[in-house]
Amino acid sequence: MPTTTPSLLTAVRPWGGEPVDIVLADGSIQEIRPAGAVAPAPEDDILDGRGLLALPGFVNAHAHVDKSWWGRPWVPYGGEGGTQGRIAHERAEREGLGIPSADGAERVLREMLRHGTTAVRSHVDVDLGVGLDGIAAVREAERTLDGAVEVSIVAFPQDGVIRRPGVLDLLDRAAGEGVTAIGGLDPCAIDRDPVAQLDGLFAIAERHGCGIDIHLHSGGDLGAFEYELIIDRTRRSGLTGMVNVAHGFALGQLPSARQEALLGEFAELGISWTTVAPVRSAPLPWVRMRELGIPVGLGTDGIRDLWSPYGDGDLLRVALDFARVHGVRYDEDFAEVLHLATDRAAGFVGWPVAGLEAGAPADIVLIDAQNPADAIVRGPARENVLSGGALVVVHGELLL
Amino acid sequence: MPTTTPSLLTAVRPWGGEPVDIVLADGSIQEIRPAGAVAPAPEDDILDGRGLLALPGFVNAHAHVDKSWWGRPWVPYGGEGGTQGRIAHERAEREGLGIPSADGAERVLREMLRHGTTAVRSHVDVDLGVGLDGIAAVREAERTLDGAVEVSIVAFPQDGVIRRPGVLDLLDRAAGEGVTAIGGLDPCAIDRDPVAQLDGLFAIAERHGCGIDIHLHSGGDLGAFEYELIIDRTRRSGLTGMVNVAHGFALGQLPSARQEALLGEFAELGISWTTVAPVRSAPLPWVRMRELGIPVGLGTDGIRDLWSPYGDGDLLRVALDFARVHGVRYDEDFAEVLHLATDRAAGFVGWPVAGLEAGAPADIVLIDAQNPADAIVRGPARENVLSGGALVVVHGELLL
Repeated sequence: MPTTTPSLLTAVRPWGGEPVDIVLADGSIQEIRPAGAVAPAPEDDILDGRGLLALPGFVNAHAHVDKSWWGRPWVPYGGEGGTQGRIAHERAEREGLGIPSADGAERVLREMLRHGTTAVRSHVDVDLGVGLDGIAAVREAERTLDGAVEVSIVAFPQDGVIRRPGVLDLLDRAAGEGVTAIGGLDPCAIDRDPVAQLDGLFAIAERHGCGIDIHLHSGGDLGAFEYELIIDRTRRSGLTGMVNVAHGFALGQLPSARQEALLGEFAELGISWTTVAPVRSAPLPWVRMRELGIPVGLGTDGIRDLWSPYGDGDLLRVALDFARVHGVRYDEDFAEVLHLATDRAAGFVGWPVAGLEAGAPADIVLIDAQNPADAIVRGPARENVLSGGALVVVHGELLL
Repeated sequence: MPTTTPSLLTAVRPWGGEPVDIVLADGSIQEIRPAGAVAPAPEDDILDGRGLLALPGFVNAHAHVDKSWWGRPWVPYGGEGGTQGRIAHERAEREGLGIPSADGAERVLREMLRHGTTAVRSHVDVDLGVGLDGIAAVREAERTLDGAVEVSIVAFPQDGVIRRPGVLDLLDRAAGEGVTAIGGLDPCAIDRDPVAQLDGLFAIAERHGCGIDIHLHSGGDLGAFEYELIIDRTRRSGLTGMVNVAHGFALGQLPSARQEALLGEFAELGISWTTVAPVRSAPLPWVRMRELGIPVGLGTDGIRDLWSPYGDGDLLRVALDFARVHGVRYDEDFAEVLHLATDRAAGFVGWPVAGLEAGAPADIVLIDAQNPADAIVRGPARENVLSGGALVVVHGELLL
């Protein structure tokens, strides 16, 4: 487990600014002061930051850590295209690959941590085949890592809800056992009965006071229709600030007037958004969403699993994808993208405070880069990662 | 300069296959044989390949090495959007940044080499401001690197041709001095006179027997119109196999019947294609292009310059972008993408033979990856790079 818990981090440059010293204690940031302003005490355990860029720990707001085979021999991807094809492929193959397992979840969580991610909101498959075993596996992996990566779990009905009688009961059980949110998936395209799926999900969330985090892949008008149904139910249920849309490809495709009307409702109802910034997706109105206070989180999606061969667990690469998809060119916008990947995403994992400020968790990433833009474009290895005050990465290698 | 020139590379896995030994001499691959089939001779200078994945050296088919500020302090991007905005920004700022320079070209070529690129086809700005100075700077950088990266030069009129009287004369001079090709740029959108630009370019190419490599950014019908004008002139001039379209965003956007008609003409006239695989670009019909024998090359485009803050010179990342934009999922397709990035691109730099086979240049990249798909998705540092038989990279660090 962690080799050291420094009490003083010297000469680091938060967000590429002037060098500071950061005082750490009890897993939190105690104080940030200009570099060298106070002489170190003899008892200080110092980590010399050597002018490195300092960022808060990354928050992965959309992952699937239960079903990766990261760190195991390559498995060729063999499914058919499309959402349904991938679901069918996964159902057919996962047992043979030992999915889900605590070992598999731990491997991909370790890789995420190596890249500086200290908190993850992960969807975990819940279905008639695996029941709640995936959730147990992910919780075991989190315990094994002793909290170096904090995991918020979304109980995710990947195979559908209404078309698989019994899944609502499983989601209800998961909510009763304390997951952060229950998931959902394409109420039109997969369940073919949007009202039944959404009414089912909202009833469970209301009963347990948990969130809803729903995968929506449908584009254009079909996607917008689903947003409207969700807006309706969020308003009626009073689940303000508890509902998140994942992917939501339609939003970027809609004409600006309709987009604007929807954004107004999202803002009013505290509906948040997570994206994995796929190439070829329509850009989100992310600047307007920021103005309206609509939280946007970045995620890796699945990493090397039966759904897709892609992904490496590095949220800095997702930040690069997000920047490119949105045509980011200016330094201040690159910094904004890294805020999405770090402190602004605190709400996705239930943290009251995050970032490089006194009182926040001592989750800090040091990178040999000039500024946020340079870090995003080059994606260098993480020189150091601190999680809860413990040094867990040195020169891109995990100490755990 | 290179520390060693091994004569025997042992236990490497070409394209992820069975381990082989590769005999090297005089900068070329002499023989490839099953690993251990022949005992090493006492005089062999052995590089132990330890089962690493072996690929041919990467060929960057579209770069702008004359105008990068890679390796120097970060310069914020400050231009307006759009092609014309970027051109104007570049004209206003480049002199203050010392662009072009041999030093700048060398820095970015070294970074490309560090990532395994041993040959580059680079556009080099030719205009009324810098004349042919950029070409001289790039040639000097290539000499300084002693051929570790071979550079084919395209004399590129970034600021337009017809709207800048005198540029055709500069291109004519460059062609006379032996560049691989002369470039062009958006004959409709920039010069506003497609016939004048294309007739001017083709006259020079015919006179000197050089190629034409033209940047086309226009989409849809306007782009297709430009393709038709180029097809016409290629047929009339007899410049079969000498014309390349760079970017050509329209091709992926066209209805399939029109696409197919154009591809037939490209194939007949040997018109090739280079792409930098931008996110959000329409996928090329790359499988059909392969069936028809239309060469497709991958390039990095500019790296951190007044045109764009993006890019890191790693063609393996471009291969990842290409794979994602084209929805590649199967192992054999990932391997095809790496063929585009390596041996299949030999024609873009005028090499008669390339790849991992006897007689090819000893340009070899070793990567700690299971197979081409794993290498593309993870993009690990290059364990070793050999260029012309010389070991130039160890553990991702350049020895030069």
